[in-house]
Parts: sequence; structure tokens; C-alpha cells
Amino acid sequence: MTRFVPSSFHLPRLRLCPALFLPRQPRITRQMSSIKQPAWTPPVPTQPEPILKIYNSLTRTKTEFVPKSGRSVKWYNCGPTVYDASHMGHARNYVTQDVLRRIMSDYFGYDVHFVMNITDIDDKIIKRARQNHLIEKFRTDTVSLNEDLISQVSTAWRGFVHKEVAAGLPSEERVFGTDEVDTRFSQITQLIQNKEWKQECLKRDEKFDMNFTSAVTVRLSALRNAENSLKSGIATQEEAHKLIDESKDILVIFLDDQYKSTVTDPSLSRNLASYWEKSFFDDMRRLRVRDPDTLTRVTEYMPEIITFVEKIIDNGYAYEAEGSVYFDTKAFDDAPHHDYAKLEPWSKGNREDGGGEGKFTRRSASDFALWKASKPGEPSWNSPWGAGRPGWHIECSVMASAILGDNMDIHSGGIDLAFPHHDNEMAQSEAYHDCPVWVNYFVHTGHLHIEGLKMSKSLKNFITIDEILQKYTARQMRLAFVTQLWNAKVDFSESLMAGEVKNLETTLNNFFTNVKALVNQDRDSMLKSDGYHHYEAAETELVTRFHHSQHAFRIALCDSFNTPEALDALRDLVSRTNTYINSRGKAVNINVVENIARWVGKMLRMFGLGEGESSEIGWGQEASGDGAGVDREEVLMPYLRTLSAFRDGVRRLAINKGDTALKDILALCDKLRDEELIPLGVALDDQEDGKALVKLAPPAELMKVRDEKRAIAEAKQAKKEAAKEAERLERLEKLNKGRLAPTEMFKPPHVEEGAFGSWDETGIPLTDGEGKEVSKSAKKKMQKAHATQSRLHEEFFKK
Amino acid sequence: MTRFVPSSFHLPRLRLCPALFLPRQPRITRQMSSIKQPAWTPPVPTQPEPILKIYNSLTRTKTEFVPKSGRSVKWYNCGPTVYDASHMGHARNYVTQDVLRRIMSDYFGYDVHFVMNITDIDDKIIKRARQNHLIEKFRTDTVSLNEDLISQVSTAWRGFVHKEVAAGLPSEERVFGTDEVDTRFSQITQLIQNKEWKQECLKRDEKFDMNFTSAVTVRLSALRNAENSLKSGIATQEEAHKLIDESKDILVIFLDDQYKSTVTDPSLSRNLASYWEKSFFDDMRRLRVRDPDTLTRVTEYMPEIITFVEKIIDNGYAYEAEGSVYFDTKAFDDAPHHDYAKLEPWSKGNREDGGGEGKFTRRSASDFALWKASKPGEPSWNSPWGAGRPGWHIECSVMASAILGDNMDIHSGGIDLAFPHHDNEMAQSEAYHDCPVWVNYFVHTGHLHIEGLKMSKSLKNFITIDEILQKYTARQMRLAFVTQLWNAKVDFSESLMAGEVKNLETTLNNFFTNVKALVNQDRDSMLKSDGYHHYEAAETELVTRFHHSQHAFRIALCDSFNTPEALDALRDLVSRTNTYINSRGKAVNINVVENIARWVGKMLRMFGLGEGESSEIGWGQEASGDGAGVDREEVLMPYLRTLSAFRDGVRRLAINKGDTALKDILALCDKLRDEELIPLGVALDDQEDGKALVKLAPPAELMKVRDEKRAIAEAKQAKKEAAKEAERLERLEKLNKGRLAPTEMFKPPHVEEGAFGSWDETGIPLTDGEGKEVSKSAKKKMQKAHATQSRLHEEFFKK
Repeated sequence: MTRFVPSSFHLPRLRLCPALFLPRQPRITRQMSSIKQPAWTPPVPTQPEPILKIYNSLTRTKTEFVPKSGRSVKWYNCGPTVYDASHMGHARNYVTQDVLRRIMSDYFGYDVHFVMNITDIDDKIIKRARQNHLIEKFRTDTVSLNEDLISQVSTAWRGFVHKEVAAGLPSEERVFGTDEVDTRFSQITQLIQNKEWKQECLKRDEKFDMNFTSAVTVRLSALRNAENSLKSGIATQEEAHKLIDESKDILVIFLDDQYKSTVTDPSLSRNLASYWEKSFFDDMRRLRVRDPDTLTRVTEYMPEIITFVEKIIDNGYAYEAEGSVYFDTKAFDDAPHHDYAKLEPWSKGNREDGGGEGKFTRRSASDFALWKASKPGEPSWNSPWGAGRPGWHIECSVMASAILGDNMDIHSGGIDLAFPHHDNEMAQSEAYHDCPVWVNYFVHTGHLHIEGLKMSKSLKNFITIDEILQKYTARQMRLAFVTQLWNAKVDFSESLMAGEVKNLETTLNNFFTNVKALVNQDRDSMLKSDGYHHYEAAETELVTRFHHSQHAFRIALCDSFNTPEALDALRDLVSRTNTYINSRGKAVNINVVENIARWVGKMLRMFGLGEGESSEIGWGQEASGDGAGVDREEVLMPYLRTLSAFRDGVRRLAINKGDTALKDILALCDKLRDEELIPLGVALDDQEDGKALVKLAPPAELMKVRDEKRAIAEAKQAKKEAAKEAERLERLEKLNKGRLAPTEMFKPPHVEEGAFGSWDETGIPLTDGEGKEVSKSAKKKMQKAHATQSRLHEEFFKK
Repeated sequence: MTRFVPSSFHLPRLRLCPALFLPRQPRITRQMSSIKQPAWTPPVPTQPEPILKIYNSLTRTKTEFVPKSGRSVKWYNCGPTVYDASHMGHARNYVTQDVLRRIMSDYFGYDVHFVMNITDIDDKIIKRARQNHLIEKFRTDTVSLNEDLISQVSTAWRGFVHKEVAAGLPSEERVFGTDEVDTRFSQITQLIQNKEWKQECLKRDEKFDMNFTSAVTVRLSALRNAENSLKSGIATQEEAHKLIDESKDILVIFLDDQYKSTVTDPSLSRNLASYWEKSFFDDMRRLRVRDPDTLTRVTEYMPEIITFVEKIIDNGYAYEAEGSVYFDTKAFDDAPHHDYAKLEPWSKGNREDGGGEGKFTRRSASDFALWKASKPGEPSWNSPWGAGRPGWHIECSVMASAILGDNMDIHSGGIDLAFPHHDNEMAQSEAYHDCPVWVNYFVHTGHLHIEGLKMSKSLKNFITIDEILQKYTARQMRLAFVTQLWNAKVDFSESLMAGEVKNLETTLNNFFTNVKALVNQDRDSMLKSDGYHHYEAAETELVTRFHHSQHAFRIALCDSFNTPEALDALRDLVSRTNTYINSRGKAVNINVVENIARWVGKMLRMFGLGEGESSEIGWGQEASGDGAGVDREEVLMPYLRTLSAFRDGVRRLAINKGDTALKDILALCDKLRDEELIPLGVALDDQEDGKALVKLAPPAELMKVRDEKRAIAEAKQAKKEAAKEAERLERLEKLNKGRLAPTEMFKPPHVEEGAFGSWDETGIPLTDGEGKEVSKSAKKKMQKAHATQSRLHEEFFKK
């Protein structure tokens, strides 16, 4: 069917002004006060709006979520202690919290204020910074391999074994002599070379594997190699450093034991924290975890911490002892409006960390430090109780209170932190604000296991985020967590990734690819016909199914963020849509399919599984990927075509070597700059070094600048040409003047007829028209003019 | 401060397996059934969640919005009748509805199903299509200018004036003779040349301006010019067409009156509708109005319309008369559970279109046609009542019911449609479904005025979307509407655009530019230090203000989508943030400012004022604009740098004219293709015509292809070189062989010592070692070998 495209659809509409002849009747005022609209009653829902419930650790049940103020949500999340690379445990924890946060803000539309702390001062940070410093110094100070170094490494090794062995013994057996160490030491060295032991290890519950053995072997053989090198007389610094590097983790403990108190520079731990904080956020961004709205660092809140502790003392819930301050759990728990350990009241008397510092000064075993008197070499801050630093739990109370005040809607963190950290944190804050409830909803993300095992800091299954992102994309990692309940234990395994995650990703990818292809096909055919939109039974059914899926998806997320069930709703919808597509063939209603694909994509992006505009089909752009997305292509193609055409021109010229080729190349370069790139919004500013600056700017602006420049140049050129022309005219006039021969200048028609009567041979008048001799003065004047004209005439002839 | 970046922070963690020595104590099971958590009570909000209320035309008040099922919203919107270019009235209507739809889905998070119809069969479409056809035909059939043509145009002009004059008169005066027409005609022609009349017009209420006069003048002078041309003997087709084109709008009415019934091709109106439907959606997309989720076209729903009408008759609310079917408003209104004209009950007896067709067959003046018997030349469909077509109101009832069923949450449309269209539509549907409520919330967008005047189809102020988009961007157009209440009258004026809209846009642009600059500055400084995040009083105050603004924004949108008040909340927040930035100087907490800017940008994008990722600062990319967004810059810069560097190279070569310059240019071209563009994912395929094809593909793929090509080329080269080398060696060997003089070849050391006894002068043996003469056959062999060697030896000497 050929389309009839009229050239003149848009006729100007002509109507004479009727008012010119007679005014129209005034319109009747419509609303008459006597007639009322019929009564209206609000609709009675057939299905009520689903209500968001959250699994609340404070009740261990799913409770309806009620924000304290409007739809604003105050949220505090426990951030990391930054002293090492972030690992899979961090990934599980922060990605999961990021998903919850995105659901709250992007799906439920709450105005979320997400606060997270960074623990940048802490025992582990101080220790790691000090150890790093000691080993670096030791390494630098060591200039050659010698008996002394070997002996130190050997002692370090024995000391380490001693500790490890002791840790495995009942306390009464923990003290034993050097001989015994030696025995144990040789037992171990034998064991780790023993195949049966390896087998034994593999069978054990904790399943230490070969990595452990080989790592120990490396350390032992490093020692043996060094001994041999020294025997062979090779005692270079290089050899020494090799030994140090391969024994670093053992040596560090040895050095720390000896020189701990000599290290006093506070910037060491600050720098370490700063380095790992940056690294943490880099990793998070790679995993598409949004930055917190507010970030708080412990070291920036020291004055507030001290004030906070003071007030807890004032309120009667803390006491000072030997420069430290402890929380009085009994006083707090006994207060009528307070409860200690709301999250795990059964753990109250069962503090594992109860055996540590201050064990003789605390009033009760469950009391914990708010402020710790500092030990030699530790960074410290002045306080009413002397130099010291904050306890672990106090920082979160202080910073969360500083930003969110005396109540928050949600507090989140890993399940490991529930007790004692979160219970202590709540107790402190409630003691400070003297309020019964500081946190309304406590959400704890579940444990992470790797291949069925707890991830431990042993060598075995400790995987950093950097390592895992070399194997899986951020999307796959997030999918692995979104397919699981946020508060359940996740077992991260090869089979999860290769199975469920891979399958789901493939299903969704195929779906998007198919729908995009159908949409493109449809767009092509739309050039010929305007399609058919009518819903038959199949479309009506699919649309109904679509709305059911949207409802099921909402029900799932309202059910304490049940993301696996929500994904099931998407998966089911995709499968039904595929069935529809296959069954309808050419009659497929692309509009319906496109709506579904857009919504599925939007929900996936809502989970942070992709980025991109909401109007886009599919995941959107993968931040770190290289896939040539539709948008990228659209943006780039005009530029690339320009570039390519330019290159073509250069090539052509270069191939058809001609005299004028090089001049033409320059012209091409100018044309690219002035004509081709400006409309694309690109300015090339030529620089003296021959490398142009590239700038992006609005084309209209660039054109304006270019045209102004051109106008100035043209005006300049015009002026120059005008001056030239003036000069030329002047010259011409002068020349023209010279055309007249001096012999003729005083004869008619150049003077009046009859002005003179006779002339000498050069043409100078002798007598006037009446025969009178010309006066001397007049003659002199004429001779002068004659001389001038002679010169001009000569010039004229030369030209 | 120099940063301490340790090379070895990431030590492998070594710990011996304690289980090897003694198993650890089993952990105490934490949850003990006897100890319970303290009681938890849900929070009591200090500020309740705001509730969405919508101004409902069914009550003329703001009523709480309660969706019928979960959070799904069924929404039907009256679409356009497509027979001409869409104009400012459409822009106001559809942009406003798009904003409401976006607020519902993207801000409040409802699952919206937005249905819109296209009226593709209707009196206006039929008439316009027929008229277009007639004038096109007339034009083609006219081959020259002649008296007959001039007379026809003149008659057309008089007929038009007659009609217009009649329209301005009371009905009893509407019939008058030709003489009077002539008088009026000359009155008009005089008037429009009369300055006083123009003044008069300008003063009038309807303020017809000069455009009108000049348009009439054009038509009259076209007639005069044609008359003059003919007198001067210029009678070409060109002249004739000129007259036709300039009198088109008058001629069309004349032709239509005469030939109306001869035009019977139904594809004419379908094609016209199809053309303008596409044009409508093009305009809408340029205004960033989202496509409807479901589009329905009247011509696709004929069977459903007929069934629908039949059921209304069956239910007793309609009757057939002379091949048409009418709705029985009295029967309906009298039914106990029905009300006719719920929106404007006071307009019931006051139908302006009551005087038209079927006025003698209808039972009551307020009855209206459900089905119209067709007139000659009109497109028609068979029905139980004979050939006909649907009435105007029935289509919306049928299509909305087909997609959304017997109840919908929201029905929207322009306020002009409230009565009779929407009232009739509701009555029909409630008559069909026999239900009391078909629409729960009726929302009507307000009128549009232009510079204080109603936009009318007179020449005066009718502005198409295409025209307005040449003057303002889509964002500015949308801002103009978002700054006004959706259900208020909007006065679109130069002063609105140059004032409020421009100011707001500039304020926001400046804000985003400043914040981006601060963020970039901060990022640079973050390379040196990790910043300071602590909240001082100023930050706490700003954050509190931010949350207040978020709440105020929500309150405004809950108050029946009060977008101007919501924008005020944004404007206020921006202004306070600017004040904060100015007052804090270097101490500005960029994090807080960035959060605010992101949220403001997100809300603007939510209103459809820009597109882009939610993480982006600012408007995001302007779809049709030229603004250089952050993302665009990020995508393009690598390519542009390459292009520019290439150009630099070419320039340099061209400037430093040298012998080898052109060869080097070729090498540059190859390098660009093979080295520089491939890692950027761009393939240039050189073609014979010198214009390379540009392709985008994953870099890895391109590199693979390139490397394979290279490997093949290298292998080929290697083979070639090997062959060359083999040849060289062979030649060398041959040459070497020739080194030996033939005279020496049968003498030691080249033969065994004592093999021969004597030789002739050429060196051929005469006797063997024992003095015996050499045999003839042996001699012959040696002579042959000698000849060969002589040749080789000669060659050797030549070399």
C-alpha cells in the first residue's frame, strides 16, 4: 500500500471574525448552584495495598514498617574497620545492604538518609600499621645475609609455633619449655611433609587444604635455602631480603613482640586507615554499591565521643577505673525503662571478649570499655580520664547520634555484630539519650560461607573482592546475593555461580536480546505500515499475567524484601512472555512485549544489577564492560564517521601524490576543525606544539565564536583590501595625471581656449591670449608645474 | 603530607590448624529458650506519612486516592483525533498528563497501566481527507489559467463570505440573496484595507490581529493578480496553480460542497489518520511524553463497538431510529442505580451539539448517537442497523472497557471534553456493564491560553508543536507546564517563558554547574588527602533543611500533584544550598551538597525534564539538545582525542614538507586503523572507493581478528623469506661449487691422492695412479663434468 503523504495537510485556517457582523450569543454559565453532582464514595479495594514488613532482629519476627517521620527513613549502617583488603564477607554484607537500600528508596520511594561509619582507629589498625612499619624498617636495615638474621627468623618461627601450639592446648598446659617447642617444631616440619597428614587434614571438619601446607613449606624452605646460601658464601642483601619477604608474616609477630613500644608515630595508623578506606570504596563502587549519603570517621568525632562518655557517666551508667571508662551493664539493666542486650538477652553473661583488658578493674564481667587508657606507642587523645582512645562500641553510638539524633528508623549490620557490638551500642545510646528506644528496626545480613565453609582468615578460603571480580562480573556477584534471602546464610559456591546465577543471567539476556530484535524488526516494518494494536485473547491474557507478576513482585518485596521470590516473579513473567512470543509468531503484539521487557529491566536496575535510563530495554550499560550498547553507538557514530571521512581524505591525497597535495591536506585539517566538528559540539584549539586541545561545548556556542572570529577576520580583510584599493586608486590617479605630456599641459583643452598665444619648445607659454608676454612670476610657477608633470609623465611611460 | 602506601599490606594470613593439636571448646548455643527479648512496640510517628489526594472532577474536591487493586493503577486517557498537525493545546494536555503519570509511577511507585486511544475515524478526518483529495485532483486537472478558473475561485470566495456572514447573523436572517452577498463581499474587501477596521479589531475582545487581515489580503490579491495575468495573456499552468495554492482554503470548501458525494475511497481517511498519528507521536516524543502502555485505534475495534451498542440496547438504554442508534438519556437517568452527566449534571439539558443530525428522530434533545447511519461517500461498516459508523463518544467506552474492564482507577482528558464527551462515555459504559461506577477518579487538565487569549483555529495564535520546538527546548516547554497547576488555566506567554521558566532553568543550571565544579575540584584534592567529613552546625542545618524540603516536596505532590509548590521546594533548597556553599568557602562539605544536587536532579528527571542515570548530577542528557553531559563527555573523549591526535600528525607532516611525508601519512592512516582505533572498539574497513566502513565491535574481538590477520601475513612473509633464503643458499652453493677451477678438479685434494698419474693442459686425467691410461668411458664422464665445472667457474668469476 503506498502511503499518501499530502504536501498540504497543514493549511492555514481562515475564518472571518464573526464578531465583525454580530456578536455570538453569550455562553450559558455551566455550573448552576441548584444542581449538584451525584454522591461519590471512595472505591473499596478488591485487593488491599500490600504493606511492607521487615524481619526485625529486635523481635525476631517480621514487623510492619512504620517510619517515624513522614516517608523519611533514617538509616545507620555499620561500616568496615579499614586495615586490609575487603573480601567476600564485605561483598555479601554491603551489597546486600545496598540492595535493601535501593528497594527502600527506588521501589518503595522512601526518602532514605543512609549513614555509614568508617572505623579508622582500632586495635587491629594500630597493630597492622605498627607491624608494617617494623618489617619495612627491618628490611631496609638489613644489608646482608648473615647468621644473626637466620637465627632471628628461626626464633620467630619457633615463637610462632609455640603460640599456635599453646592456643590449641588447655590453659594449664600452655606453659612449656624450649625443648618442648623444639620437639613440636620438628613434629610440625615433619608433619607438613607427610602425605598422610595432608589426607588427615582434608578429612577434618575444618578441612585445611594443600594451600596451607604449601604455604608453611615455603616458609620453612626459605629458611633452609638461606642457610645453604650462607654456607655457599652468597650473603648479598638480595638473598637477605628474599628470606625476609618469604618469612614476613612470622617475622612480623616476632618483631612486634620485641619493638612494639618503640613505635609511637600516630600518622602510621591514620595513613594505613586512609589507604584501606579508599580501597574499600573502590571495591564497593566496582560492585555498584552506592556511596553512603553521609560518611563518618571515628577520628573526626573525638570531642563528641568524650562528651558522650561524660554524659553516660553523669546519667549513672558508666564509671572510670584506672584511666579507662566502663559501661555499667547492671545499673543500666536494672533501670526500669532500660533493657541491656535487647537483641540477645541470653548472651548477656556470656561475653567471649570478657577475658581481655580491664578484667580486674571492671565491676561486672559483662561491663565493657567506653574509653581505654592508652598503652605505650598507641595513638591517643586527651580526655578527662587521661590519654586514651575510644572503645570499639562507643563510636557507632556517637556518630549515629550526631547525624541521626535520639532515634533512627533502621540500623543494619552483619549478623556477627549483633552481640556484643550492637547490643552495647544500643545500651550506650539509650543511656546517653536516656530514651527507651534508639533503634526501631534492626536488620542483620546473614553469614557468608564459601563452598559450604565459613570464610576464615586462614589461608584456605579467604577471597578478596579484587580477586573475585577477576572471575565474575559485578552483576553476577550481585545476582548471587539477590537470589538469596538477605538475612539467610549464603553459600557462595562454584555450583551457585555456574548454576542458578548463570542460568538466570542467560535467561534474562536471551529475553532482552529477543525483544530488542522484535522491536527493531517492528520499527522497520512500521516504515511501511502503522501496525495493528488490537488485543486478542492472547494479549489480554499476557497483560493480565503482567499485572499479576507486578503484584507478586510487590508482595515479595513487602514480605521483608524477599528478593528470591521477587526474582521468581520476573522469571515466571519472562517465561510466559517467551511462550506468548513463540505461540503468536508474526501476530505478536510487540507493544505488550516491550512494556514487559522495560518493566523487567527497570526492576533489575532497581536491584542495582545494571545502570541506564529507565526507558531502556534490558540491563542497561554494564559499567565496566565493553559491550557496544545502542546508546553508545548512537552517541559515537556521528563522530566516528567524521573521523573516518577525514582519514579517507588524507589517504586519498597521500595516494594521489601531487604537487598541491600537502597544501590540500592543510585545508582538510582546517575544514575538519571549522566545518565538520563544530556542529558536533567539538572545538579543536590549535596549539603551538601542534597538538590541538579538544573541547566539548554546545555547537551553537562554538558556531557563534567561529562566526564572530570569521566576521572579524573578514572585516580585517575587507579593511586591508579597501586600503589596498585606495592605494591603487591613488597610484592610478597619479599615473593618469602623468598621461598628459608636459608639452601639452598649457595648451587647450587643458587650459581655456585662447588663454595663451604662443609657447616655447617645451610647451611653456610665452604670451597670453592677447599677445602679451607672460609675467615672470607666472612663468616661474608654470615652470615648476611643468617640471612636476615631466616627472609624472616619465613615470607614466615607465609603467 | 606524603601518603604511606605500603607495598605489602596484603600479607597472606598464616595460622596453623589448631585442630591439629587439640579441638577448640564447642561454642555455647546462644539462644536459650528460657530468656526472651524485651517487648517491642511499633514506632508512633511524629509526622504521619502524607496521603495522596487528587482533585476529582466527579466531586470537584480533592479526594484521597484509593486504588482498586493493590498498587496497580488502571488509567485511560483520551487521545487525539488525528487529522492535522498537533498544536500547543495538545502539548499542554499530553505533557501535563505525562507529568501526572510519571509522578504516579516514578515518584509514588504505582504500577500504572496507561491506555490511550487514537480516533482514526471521525467527521473531521473524513472531511479533511476528502477535501485534500478534491483539491489535489482539481489542481492536477487544471492545465492553464482561464476565465472559468477565475470565476470558480471568485464564486468560492463569495460562498465562503456568505457562510461566514450567515454564521454571524441570527438564524432568521441567515438566508439572503446574491446581491447582499456581493454587498457584504465588497464591504469586507473594503474593510480589510481600512486602517480603522484594523484598529477596531485590535480593540475587540477576540483581538484579531494583523495576521488575519494580511491573510485575507493575500487571498484577494491572488484573485486580482490572476485577473491581471490573464489580461496580459499569461495563462500558464504555473499561474493557475499559483491562484489555486493561494486560494486553497476557500476553494476546498467550494469543491467539497460540489463534489462531496463523489469521493468514496475509504483508504483516503485511513491514510490521512495514519499520517497524522505518526506525526502526533513524533511530536510527543520530542516533548518527552512517554508512549502509552496500550494504544487503541477505533478502526480496529469495530466488532467490539457493534456488540457494545447491541448490549446497551438489550439493557434498555438505547434505541434504533432510521439506521442510527441513540442513547436513551432519560431511561438511563431514571434507572435507580444510574446517573446521567455525573460530571456536569447542570449541563444535561443544554447540549450545544443538540441541533445536528438526527434531531427529528431522537426521543430527547440530550440523546446522542451511538451509531450513525452512513452518508454517501463516507467510510462505513456493516451493522445490524445497516451500514454506518460509530458515534464519537462510544469508542472510548468500548476500547477502555476492552482493555481495562468494568472499572478503572483514573480517567483523564482535557477539561473541554468533560461534557458531553466524558459524561456520555461514562453513561454508555455504565449502561453496558450495568454498574454504578465505571471511573473512580476523573482528572481534567486545564485550558491553555496564548498571551491571555484562547488558542483558536483562526489564524491568530494557532501554534504547532513543531513551530514551538523551534523556539524553545522540550525542557523549557515542560517547565512551562510544570510550573503551573495541572488543572488550572495556563497562559503560555513570552513573559512566562522569558521570566519564570528561563529564571528557573538558569538557577538550576548554575546550581548544577557549580556543584559539578566543586565535586571535580574535590576529586582532584582527594588524590592528595582523604577529606574531612565531620558535620559542623552548618552541615547539620543544611541536612535538616534537605529533609524538610524532601518532605515539603512530597506534601506538595500528595496535594493533588501540586507541581508549582513542589518546584518551590526545590528552588528553596537550591537557594539555601547556594547560601551554604558561599558561606563555607573552602570548608564546604561536598558530600552533603552532592547529595542535594543528586536528589534535585532526580526529581527534575522524575518530572520528565531530563533523562539519564539516577546517579548523575543535574538534568542528565537532553535527548534532542546539545548540552554536553558528563556521560557523553566520558564516552566521547577517548575517541575525540584519537581523532585529534591523528589530525595533529597529519598537520605536522604536511607542514614539514619532506620527501617522505606522503609515505608517512599513509603509515599514520594504517596506525590509526590498526593500533589506535581497535582498542577503542572501532573497526575501519578500507574499501575500494577510498571510503572506509566504520564499525563498532568489542575490542577483544577486533584485536583477535587483527592478530589473526597479522599472524597469517607474518606466516606468509616468513614463508616467502624462507623460500628466498633457500634460493639464496642454493645459489651460494652453486657459486661455491664454481670456485674450483676445472683444471684442478681432478687433482688432489679434490680427488684421492694418487688417484691419477698425469693430466692434459685442461686438467683432465690421462693416466691413473698406476700409470695406466684412463678408460674412454671414464674420460668421457670426466670431460662432461669438466665442461659443467668450467661453466660454473666462469659464472663464479663473473660474480
